[in-house]
Amino acid sequence: MLAEIITIGDEILIGQIVDTNSAWMATELNKIGIRVKQISSISDDKEHILKALAEAASRASIIFITGGLGPTKDDITKKTLAEYFGVELVENKDAFANVERIFAKYNRPLLEINKQQALVPANCEVVLNENGTAPGMWFNHNGVIYMSMPGVPFEMMYMMEGQVLPKIKATLKLPVIIHKTLLTVGEGESFLAERIADIENDLPSHIKLAYLPKLGQVRLRLSAFGEDEAALQKEVDAFATRFIERIGSPFVIDQDIPLEKAILDLMESNGLTLSVAESCTGGYLSHLFTQHPGSSQVFLGGAVSYSYELKESILGVKNETLWQHGAVSEETVKEMVEGALLNFKSDLAVAITGVAGPGGGTEDKPVGTVWIAVAAKEKSLIKKYTFGSKRRQNIERSAVMALSMLNTLLTQIKK
Amino acid sequence: MLAEIITIGDEILIGQIVDTNSAWMATELNKIGIRVKQISSISDDKEHILKALAEAASRASIIFITGGLGPTKDDITKKTLAEYFGVELVENKDAFANVERIFAKYNRPLLEINKQQALVPANCEVVLNENGTAPGMWFNHNGVIYMSMPGVPFEMMYMMEGQVLPKIKATLKLPVIIHKTLLTVGEGESFLAERIADIENDLPSHIKLAYLPKLGQVRLRLSAFGEDEAALQKEVDAFATRFIERIGSPFVIDQDIPLEKAILDLMESNGLTLSVAESCTGGYLSHLFTQHPGSSQVFLGGAVSYSYELKESILGVKNETLWQHGAVSEETVKEMVEGALLNFKSDLAVAITGVAGPGGGTEDKPVGTVWIAVAAKEKSLIKKYTFGSKRRQNIERSAVMALSMLNTLLTQIKK
Repeated sequence: MLAEIITIGDEILIGQIVDTNSAWMATELNKIGIRVKQISSISDDKEHILKALAEAASRASIIFITGGLGPTKDDITKKTLAEYFGVELVENKDAFANVERIFAKYNRPLLEINKQQALVPANCEVVLNENGTAPGMWFNHNGVIYMSMPGVPFEMMYMMEGQVLPKIKATLKLPVIIHKTLLTVGEGESFLAERIADIENDLPSHIKLAYLPKLGQVRLRLSAFGEDEAALQKEVDAFATRFIERIGSPFVIDQDIPLEKAILDLMESNGLTLSVAESCTGGYLSHLFTQHPGSSQVFLGGAVSYSYELKESILGVKNETLWQHGAVSEETVKEMVEGALLNFKSDLAVAITGVAGPGGGTEDKPVGTVWIAVAAKEKSLIKKYTFGSKRRQNIERSAVMALSMLNTLLTQIKK
Repeated sequence: MLAEIITIGDEILIGQIVDTNSAWMATELNKIGIRVKQISSISDDKEHILKALAEAASRASIIFITGGLGPTKDDITKKTLAEYFGVELVENKDAFANVERIFAKYNRPLLEINKQQALVPANCEVVLNENGTAPGMWFNHNGVIYMSMPGVPFEMMYMMEGQVLPKIKATLKLPVIIHKTLLTVGEGESFLAERIADIENDLPSHIKLAYLPKLGQVRLRLSAFGEDEAALQKEVDAFATRFIERIGSPFVIDQDIPLEKAILDLMESNGLTLSVAESCTGGYLSHLFTQHPGSSQVFLGGAVSYSYELKESILGVKNETLWQHGAVSEETVKEMVEGALLNFKSDLAVAITGVAGPGGGTEDKPVGTVWIAVAAKEKSLIKKYTFGSKRRQNIERSAVMALSMLNTLLTQIKK
């Protein structure tokens, strides 16, 4: 079953907002076995909307339209839908009651412009919008379903979850799709591909493998299409086991979660705590951890020690170490990680010091030189990396490599 | 001048990644007078790509294609482009040298699969990718420009900024557009709009004002269209001066830079240093500062004190303060900011402590309760905020409000 998503409105086209709606919808649709064939963002322009609708209908069986339903004059989606289906706009009782309800709730007078929110194309089935005045509209026209929804993310999400997805499942006969994602870190896409080539060749045509690389990590996603869910799951799991065994140490977890979340989960299940001593990453690694709910079970905190003075005062790095070897050195990163373990009283610690750039590089230590240490009481790993010249990437890569080293250390501690 | 953006690859269509590339590109294109007519995300499917290219070419003069250029076999963009233009794939010397350079840099053996990265359609002009092995490809075919780029955001961005945008400006005749952005913080969009309504009414039709709201900040962007650059600049500057005067204290800077960068610049020009004591923001505020080159001139570092113990040991918050008033309290945030000033020896300090959620809320201090303090030796501001229930937003809003308070404090110190 193929779907398309059409978002209407200039906000996305001028870059004012990022289209997060479509990614969310695509994820939800995938879960019930609907593949999104195309996502199109188009302007509030009648001819453009008409053409996009016709093109989408030529490719897909179900079309989701978001945006362009507000009361102001630049929102022409509804009129254009009526024209597309060759029907009139009529007032819908339920939609009008909903508009009245919402205005009453906020104690606002109902203006003429707001009453127009209850007008819908005559051939539509209204889907109630609990969180706003613009109604959802479901059309079934020449064998294609069209579902028009407001563009405000939470209005769309509640409508999809509460009404549209259940209605789709009740209306359409859907295939089963199963995804499984293997997260790996520290090995390039092409090396992984070569290592698992023969297993990949064994995949039957109804199971696809996709490589999803992102800054030092590669996600391998298996997608199986069919009818018998249990059999598909078994087949996918068997292939996943073969891939995991072959991949070896770069493998982290068989879930589609962020790397740092995988490490938090692993540490929490082992009752371990973590602290950090960040120099060149400047708080980014801490932020990666602390953006996740419940991270405080594992993450105690740490130091962002940008200056020499703070490396000494918070972490206890020796003054002579800094002046003899420099802030970006094996000796300093070792004292940083030891200082974090000692002062912050965590089971594990990470320290990162480097030249993020664009300034601050020397012949010895060019921009992109980064020392990372991870340590537990009984064991530590220290490694030097040479990244590139771009500050933001150096920060992100340093954090990812620190996570990769943490993953390795955790594997070694567990053994 | 109209453009279209086509993103290729299943990652967006299955919702695994959000398409941030397109929003960034649309913003940059708008700045040089190119309007994006449609953004299409399509799958790694030859027929679909061919159709999307033809459709885009029927509407726009310049087409940006991102994604689908990796070395693994699911990436078919390049072959499909060659078929679309009716040419062969040929090895490109510069692209090959670039692949070699990158593999040499990382000390990796060059595999057969990687050499294919240097193959390009015979009619293309290669645009060097400094940050990856997939070359950029510029085509000029039947009066339409096609620019294919890798989908990895930073590779695409550097390629656009360094080469593609300058090349577009040199190749196409574009109108003169001048933008001026006024950054404000701490005042809502509708309040600002009311305050400056009469000046907005004075704007001539060739100068547009856009409100760009984002988490506590509103950017006012003036865009002037015309032919005489100097005259446009003068006109825009005159209006900007009137707006700034009227806006008053929420105004931060007349540049389109991030809020934290504006504050770093302001502090650097006044020779001031900063340290932080972050609890609920967990390193995010530090990261905001340290992502900017040269931030170490101002930002000394600080503590991410997630646990009670670290609030005591690094910041010197008193044990009885924590137990009597709790970690999220006026008393604690005051001791945190004083501890940062004292221990980190900076001119200014910021402290943030709150309940980011989703857990940890109480009747007294529900999720979203955040205390923020900013202090210099002679003056401090402390304020309580009540944000919402979403963790990520609470973290971001806390950081923005801390920056807003820093901006206020800096204004008061300067006086």
